Amino acid sequence: MASLGRHILAELGGCDSGRLADLSLVESAMLGAARMARATIVTHSFHHFTGQDGGQGVSGVVIIAESHLALHTWPEHRFAAVDFFTCGKSVDVRKALDHLKAAFSANTEEVLEVERGPLRVLGIGVPGSD
Amino acid sequence: MASLGRHILAELGGCDSGRLADLSLVESAMLGAARMARATIVTHSFHHFTGQDGGQGVSGVVIIAESHLALHTWPEHRFAAVDFFTCGKSVDVRKALDHLKAAFSANTEEVLEVERGPLRVLGIGVPGSD
Repeated sequence: MASLGRHILAELGGCDSGRLADLSLVESAMLGAARMARATIVTHSFHHFTGQDGGQGVSGVVIIAESHLALHTWPEHRFAAVDFFTCGKSVDVRKALDHLKAAFSANTEEVLEVERGPLRVLGIGVPGSD
Repeated sequence: MASLGRHILAELGGCDSGRLADLSLVESAMLGAARMARATIVTHSFHHFTGQDGGQGVSGVVIIAESHLALHTWPEHRFAAVDFFTCGKSVDVRKALDHLKAAFSANTEEVLEVERGPLRVLGIGVPGSD
């Protein structure tokens, strides 16, 4: 079976804790990232949650016509875990990621890229632009 | 930084096409999987979407207190791509996955397990029970 999608798991570190804990800022940043990536937004849902260690982060998902964006933030670790699952080649994940990095004032980024359909790790590490 | 979560990317193949195209069945299966895994459901959202090749699949997300479950189905390929992002050790991903396999009549399974926080591929392949 051919590839059905591309899944990017991105870890953003050294973020601004206040921004990561701000529900409306995170929601706005994710919707902006979807638009920057030229994705077609279908619906979205964001919530505060309480982490294992009592930290107050945000969980959220944007369902796009081309699949989904999801994120979880850990303000206490200045960390956000972001997922981009995309089908087709029209979505510009790099632009979405740069938008989020700026919104959260992230200073580190690590990315794992996986092909979906037949599972295949395409790359792991700190990427350059593509 | 310690691990902040475990992310399971699961590919279910050879599924029943009719089931994968049935929005209410898929939604019910995913909510059932979250409950089977003992996850705490926060909210959920499911939609039909049109694939690149015109196929009519379902996209959906269940936000749980412990992070999220997401899926996309391709009835025309008898295929479902499932994601479980969990924090903590209380969520039983194996039970959730078995529930979905039964609901979709899947006959193949491939899994990639990734540690989130510091990105680390923990395993890839066809798993046994854990």
